Amino acid sequence: MGEAVVVRNKQVILKDYVNGYMKPSDMVVTSDNTIRLELPKVEDGLILSKNLYLSCDPYMRNRMGNVVVGTYVTSFTPGLPICGYGVARVLDSTHPDFKKGDLVWGVVNWEEYSLITDTTSLIKIQYIDNVPLSYYTGILGMPGMTAYVGFHNICSPKKGDFVFVSAASGAVGQLVGQFAKLLGCYVVGSVGSKEKVDLLKNKFGFNEAFNYKEERDLDAALKRYFPNGIDIYFENVGGEMLDAVLNNMRIHGRIAVCGMISQYNLDRVEGIYNLHLLILKRIRMQGFLVFDHYHLYPKFLDMIVPLIQEGKIAYIEDMVEGLENAPAALAGLYTGKNVGKQVVAITHR
Amino acid sequence: MGEAVVVRNKQVILKDYVNGYMKPSDMVVTSDNTIRLELPKVEDGLILSKNLYLSCDPYMRNRMGNVVVGTYVTSFTPGLPICGYGVARVLDSTHPDFKKGDLVWGVVNWEEYSLITDTTSLIKIQYIDNVPLSYYTGILGMPGMTAYVGFHNICSPKKGDFVFVSAASGAVGQLVGQFAKLLGCYVVGSVGSKEKVDLLKNKFGFNEAFNYKEERDLDAALKRYFPNGIDIYFENVGGEMLDAVLNNMRIHGRIAVCGMISQYNLDRVEGIYNLHLLILKRIRMQGFLVFDHYHLYPKFLDMIVPLIQEGKIAYIEDMVEGLENAPAALAGLYTGKNVGKQVVAITHR
Repeated sequence: MGEAVVVRNKQVILKDYVNGYMKPSDMVVTSDNTIRLELPKVEDGLILSKNLYLSCDPYMRNRMGNVVVGTYVTSFTPGLPICGYGVARVLDSTHPDFKKGDLVWGVVNWEEYSLITDTTSLIKIQYIDNVPLSYYTGILGMPGMTAYVGFHNICSPKKGDFVFVSAASGAVGQLVGQFAKLLGCYVVGSVGSKEKVDLLKNKFGFNEAFNYKEERDLDAALKRYFPNGIDIYFENVGGEMLDAVLNNMRIHGRIAVCGMISQYNLDRVEGIYNLHLLILKRIRMQGFLVFDHYHLYPKFLDMIVPLIQEGKIAYIEDMVEGLENAPAALAGLYTGKNVGKQVVAITHR
Repeated sequence: MGEAVVVRNKQVILKDYVNGYMKPSDMVVTSDNTIRLELPKVEDGLILSKNLYLSCDPYMRNRMGNVVVGTYVTSFTPGLPICGYGVARVLDSTHPDFKKGDLVWGVVNWEEYSLITDTTSLIKIQYIDNVPLSYYTGILGMPGMTAYVGFHNICSPKKGDFVFVSAASGAVGQLVGQFAKLLGCYVVGSVGSKEKVDLLKNKFGFNEAFNYKEERDLDAALKRYFPNGIDIYFENVGGEMLDAVLNNMRIHGRIAVCGMISQYNLDRVEGIYNLHLLILKRIRMQGFLVFDHYHLYPKFLDMIVPLIQEGKIAYIEDMVEGLENAPAALAGLYTGKNVGKQVVAITHR
């Protein structure tokens, strides 16, 4: 074997901890660093990857702050590449479970090539006809599993339930709505533009949808769409919307708390004032993280893949090309710029 | 049969809808009205009762406002007696399930004698050796059932759990703490006076207790008593305490939302700011009402009566004598004046 190839490695680096709204300029895209495209064979368990698709997910803002309350995420380190879910090709491996040429999804750095030492999150991709690889950043990956366990395991849904989904055109929301429809629920979603309203009604089959930015009174909007109240709320946004929902929940309602994207860029989160209604209405409100449920992934694939192949479930991606456009794509999540699941394609092969 | 006896009937009347903190003067105790101590025999299903013990419960403030959000309680009517749980003796009955001389507990008006037309809440009392009748306003009645179903059914407790109870010397709190201790949990309670702290530690067997009024920083207080965090929070108070608890909950923690007494007298409730922690910590927060669980009452009695008789559970009542002292007793709940379950004895026989 001759000299190993050393290449410039384009990376998305966090400049410094972020306060307030994340801006693309909080990151810098640079090719200053190089990477050796060969593994040290003396060490087992390593993977050298070429990264293909990156997932932009709302929780990532929480890792950009200096203080991360809670227990499952740590802050990103300024000066280093950020990381998140993605799809990658194995270029080289000393790990017994992965070999050269394998495709994997899991946590990867936002860079062209990675030396992966922690492979615990990686899952090998079995090629499926007519299913794009990028889907493993969404419907077939973490957001898909989030929608699946959040709706089926946390919401205790049943046919005929009145279901409300916020951030409903996002990676998770669009799937929750469709899972609910497949079960025979009545589903309404809230989104941030007319284009997304159309998407929900015409593409994803929601019964109704509304643009929350055009509603002066969210409580009144919910009363319009749910004159008999809400059985299930799939919470992606938090803040004012949550208070309005609490006001419109039915007795014995369930709220799956998946995310609170409206709060992630605020220095001081908004207060919630209607929690006393949990008592009167006997509401169960439950936070969850998909990580606790990955043992269900094979079962999930068995369910979702035929639905995709038979065209019974729709899925919309908003794909930008090139790592240099990744910071803007990520920041755009928090202003609702994306239509559908936000993905960054570093390269398609 | 001669002339039916007509007597003056002392009553506690709500003067007008209450704003802000309830005061004794929001009610008036009057003997202006009379009652005929004989039932019209032509009508079935009625009971004439002599009322013995009245229960003062935090939720009652919610019925004194003009607007009752939610669905299970209606406002009291100004000009009429208020009502609540109590113990009564049947003086006369045209109801097949109750006969003269029976003792019952359930919802009764705050008055000496009542003509009861809605008997749905009434449960016949079986006499139990060495157990005071007044206990059916508390440990053997609605608050006892509340503690039982709230802890055992809503909190999913297990041995070794770290349990925190607020308003812990009240009718419900003192029992929740003892149920948790019986199961082998570590239990800490918060109360509003040194006397109550002593009660919790010396009488109810809590591991620790603290006076929240002496804590400048509730978060720090909880960290002191729960260095490893809280598995179960039995929520009776709401507001600032709830935010501090959320900050100290452990992963997969459970919060049973039983009441939020700190908020009932406020014109505008306090905001809750730490709800995003439900996600990171995968917390289940569940409101409940005891009404949904009364089918468990016989099972509850089988459990609780031997515990009382064998002295394995302690129970403290704060009893005032006479209907004229009832308004002050009820208002005292919201300033923590009572030590233990607040009961009003109209008469003991």
